[in-house]
Amino acid sequence: MAFFNSRETLVDDMLSALLQTTRLEQLATSEGTSVLVRAGHSREDGQVAVISGGGSGHEPAHAGFIGSGMLTAAVPGALFSSPPVSAVLEAIRSVTGPAGCLLVIKNYTGDRLNFGLAAEQARQEGLDVETVLVADDVALPDIDQPRGLAGTVLVHKAAGHLAASGASLSEVAELARRTAESLSTLGLALRPARLPGDEGDPSRGSELGLGIHNEPGADSVEVTGAADAVATVLDGLRPDDVDAGSGLVVLLNDLGGCSPQEGLVLAHEVMRQIGPQRIVRFIGPVRAMTSLDMHGFSVTLAPADARLVEALDAATDAPGWTAAVEPMPPRRRSGDAERAWTSSEADSEAGSGAPMRASEDGRPEAATAQACRVLGEAQEHLDALDRATGDADAGTTFRAGAMSVSTLLEDGHLGFADPAAGMARIARTLETGMGGSSGVLLAILATASSRTLDDGAGWAEALEAGIEAVSHHGGAVEGDRTMLDALIPAQRVLAEGGTVQQVAEAAEEGARRTAQLQAKAGRAAHVPDAAARDTEDPGAVAVAMLFRAVSDSLGT
Amino acid sequence: MAFFNSRETLVDDMLSALLQTTRLEQLATSEGTSVLVRAGHSREDGQVAVISGGGSGHEPAHAGFIGSGMLTAAVPGALFSSPPVSAVLEAIRSVTGPAGCLLVIKNYTGDRLNFGLAAEQARQEGLDVETVLVADDVALPDIDQPRGLAGTVLVHKAAGHLAASGASLSEVAELARRTAESLSTLGLALRPARLPGDEGDPSRGSELGLGIHNEPGADSVEVTGAADAVATVLDGLRPDDVDAGSGLVVLLNDLGGCSPQEGLVLAHEVMRQIGPQRIVRFIGPVRAMTSLDMHGFSVTLAPADARLVEALDAATDAPGWTAAVEPMPPRRRSGDAERAWTSSEADSEAGSGAPMRASEDGRPEAATAQACRVLGEAQEHLDALDRATGDADAGTTFRAGAMSVSTLLEDGHLGFADPAAGMARIARTLETGMGGSSGVLLAILATASSRTLDDGAGWAEALEAGIEAVSHHGGAVEGDRTMLDALIPAQRVLAEGGTVQQVAEAAEEGARRTAQLQAKAGRAAHVPDAAARDTEDPGAVAVAMLFRAVSDSLGT
Repeated sequence: MAFFNSRETLVDDMLSALLQTTRLEQLATSEGTSVLVRAGHSREDGQVAVISGGGSGHEPAHAGFIGSGMLTAAVPGALFSSPPVSAVLEAIRSVTGPAGCLLVIKNYTGDRLNFGLAAEQARQEGLDVETVLVADDVALPDIDQPRGLAGTVLVHKAAGHLAASGASLSEVAELARRTAESLSTLGLALRPARLPGDEGDPSRGSELGLGIHNEPGADSVEVTGAADAVATVLDGLRPDDVDAGSGLVVLLNDLGGCSPQEGLVLAHEVMRQIGPQRIVRFIGPVRAMTSLDMHGFSVTLAPADARLVEALDAATDAPGWTAAVEPMPPRRRSGDAERAWTSSEADSEAGSGAPMRASEDGRPEAATAQACRVLGEAQEHLDALDRATGDADAGTTFRAGAMSVSTLLEDGHLGFADPAAGMARIARTLETGMGGSSGVLLAILATASSRTLDDGAGWAEALEAGIEAVSHHGGAVEGDRTMLDALIPAQRVLAEGGTVQQVAEAAEEGARRTAQLQAKAGRAAHVPDAAARDTEDPGAVAVAMLFRAVSDSLGT
Repeated sequence: MAFFNSRETLVDDMLSALLQTTRLEQLATSEGTSVLVRAGHSREDGQVAVISGGGSGHEPAHAGFIGSGMLTAAVPGALFSSPPVSAVLEAIRSVTGPAGCLLVIKNYTGDRLNFGLAAEQARQEGLDVETVLVADDVALPDIDQPRGLAGTVLVHKAAGHLAASGASLSEVAELARRTAESLSTLGLALRPARLPGDEGDPSRGSELGLGIHNEPGADSVEVTGAADAVATVLDGLRPDDVDAGSGLVVLLNDLGGCSPQEGLVLAHEVMRQIGPQRIVRFIGPVRAMTSLDMHGFSVTLAPADARLVEALDAATDAPGWTAAVEPMPPRRRSGDAERAWTSSEADSEAGSGAPMRASEDGRPEAATAQACRVLGEAQEHLDALDRATGDADAGTTFRAGAMSVSTLLEDGHLGFADPAAGMARIARTLETGMGGSSGVLLAILATASSRTLDDGAGWAEALEAGIEAVSHHGGAVEGDRTMLDALIPAQRVLAEGGTVQQVAEAAEEGARRTAQLQAKAGRAAHVPDAAARDTEDPGAVAVAMLFRAVSDSLGT
């Protein structure tokens, strides 16, 4: 199963998308096949036209390489089949002016013959036509007729760039031939291509040296991963032999079935194993010459000839082309030096290693200690409440947070001489010491409260800012069966000038009401109503316990 | 099996490739995770910084969208996991100057909380930070917390473009929020993602409304093809409701496992079904926000707000971005009008419908008729020779060619008053009337010979040109067990002034020698030696028969 309509309509469906989204003109030919020409191209532009083509199923090849400084026209055939001679001839006629044209032909019998006959016919009509064959496959070293593979795209770029510079047909053809002869390509696939309506041949496994029409590979291979696959391909390509001292051009081509993540891992391996310092230009991972959804890749190597590199570096608007880059050593951005531009009191005190001054009366410290004690002891109760809707770890999480804060207190590393700094210290401790979403949410609460205290506000306003931040980042509002259902009523009473006892009572009343609420945020949102019915939300209960402990400690 | 090294090294392997091939700097954070920053970025550039990030496995999101006019920094987490708060904070510190920064956050609890706490911490440090949540998923219409999907990338572009123009943080945040709220995304996949080392869950089939972390889809669906899949997705997206009269922005996102061909067919269907005239900007097929190799796609719709369109159209060097285009009606290139610039005698006479003048003595016509008779009668013999190495159709093919030429002769549509024109007519007839590689090769032979005759050369030189063309385009040389093994000796004798009898004898002797030759070109090259041993090549035999018939007809 694949996202096709039918084998019969595949090529037309693809051409429809291309014509609507890229700058192409379609030349209808006598046999109903299509020729695609760069939009607005004039035969009188004085430039050599560069034409390529072949069976479809290799997209973006070839129509995706039509563009300035690359192909002038492309002649797509049916799926994996050469285009008819007449279509090639009409392409030549349509774009060839006095400067002549070059046909870039992949070395398959059908393409050779059909493009070859069209070239002869065009010559007979007085047109100046040269052909170049690309036969970059090194899978079968002794064969007389190596296949044309992904390296073809580099010939398009070399020829197209030189043609755009106004060079003569013989100059363009000479560079194209020299480039074609310098190429070595080898492919490896875990699975062959599946044609529309065909689920493929399950008996075929990993193969080395595949063509792009599902021809069997030269060898069956065992592949254990990306490093191994790349090593196998490079072993066949012999980069040492290709690199004549001038470094390498490397093209990593996805044969159509690799995920983007695999492409990046393969690129990493290709550069690592060849050695980035030997790679003058790297292109990839790119889908340049594919074979439908073949789950594999090919690597193309060429010596880094100066004229080839110049051509690869030139800009083109061909949509299928991916820029060639010179592999760069990873660049570090210095964190420390850059970070110096701002530092606030809160920031410098946020680390948990430094001693902090306690408040004069010691009451906030005592209240904090009492809250930590209560929450530590409530572990079992909170875990049990959490069992109704979660994974029964709310108590464990709150206990961890409480322990980390009480350790700070005991070590003299938490104090409220500056309440904003104290809250900041608690926030940083909860962020790493508590865990779970609750830990991050309480850290958000404490951080926003701290900042507001720092701005000179009182506790009611600070708590309001903290609640707003929790609601904003956590995505919950009052009534969603979260800790906010205890926090918000408590803050409201505080803001109205209520006593700490009244604040604690409001939190407790809010927590009790959560037993009748349906969860809308957090993990409990995904649990059916009935499971949580008549059970209080453990986060709200924990918050209520905290306010009650503070109230008990502070007294009136 | 996939081209990975291991789940543990996946993110680092990918980052290695990215850092070597794109203009990024890496900020190492205290927890060993990475922050990626646009190379050379300065906090003092007066522009709002735009930061995004989230779990890895969605490449090119998010690091691939770092670039001019797009993201300033990205914070990748582990596979499908939010980055830690500390990494987000260090990203903010590293790129945020006086202009402030915007965090673009996909709506997942982990991302909300970790980016949210980092934002609060950065504010506490005095930095100006805004956040925007992207929740574009419409798979579950009643849920309060839709997920952030591929539409996120459009928010990156909108915010990044406005930031690059020097707009203030509140302006950038406002456009980002407006864009985020205008997005609707829905995905469909044939198969969920396979994590490294995991072959996936084979019980899961096609699903509509998937997230990008392999969460189950909202519905199981039956999909019969591309048209059906797109219709199902558009049914859920309701383009009519999204389009408020200003037209649509459409993003077609490959979730990671589509072949390039499927991408094009899906693009065709999306444009066709929405109606290209309603699409103001189309982006795709593109891998923007993937989920490893998930075999599926998502479509994102937004009203074509003028400020969004302006941002989409702006240039960026972010490597993951694909240009937005306005769907264009397919453009026709006129074949007829364009073709007029050149026409030769041979061209105008090449059509097979027009009568041709016969030679004065009628001998070439008689010889041609005799050759056609002989080859027509040799069908069984040639088919039998072909059985040794091919599919036993050589005789059938030569007979078809012979019949098409003799029909021309009988209808008065072939004559040799102008021998070049006669050969051209034969060439065009064989091209379509004979079939097989032999038909194209003989057409090449006749075309090149015709052109040479047209230049004033004699038959020996014309045949030499024809042979060269056959050898060049067919890729065979003498001794490769092809028709050339009869043609070349015959031409040699002709060039040396031999009689037609001597020419025929040379061809026959050449054909006989093919019984001892190994095939190196054509389909027979793939057949073991023994099969063809002691059997003559049918093409060479047919050529010898042709020369013998001509010799018999011409006499001395």
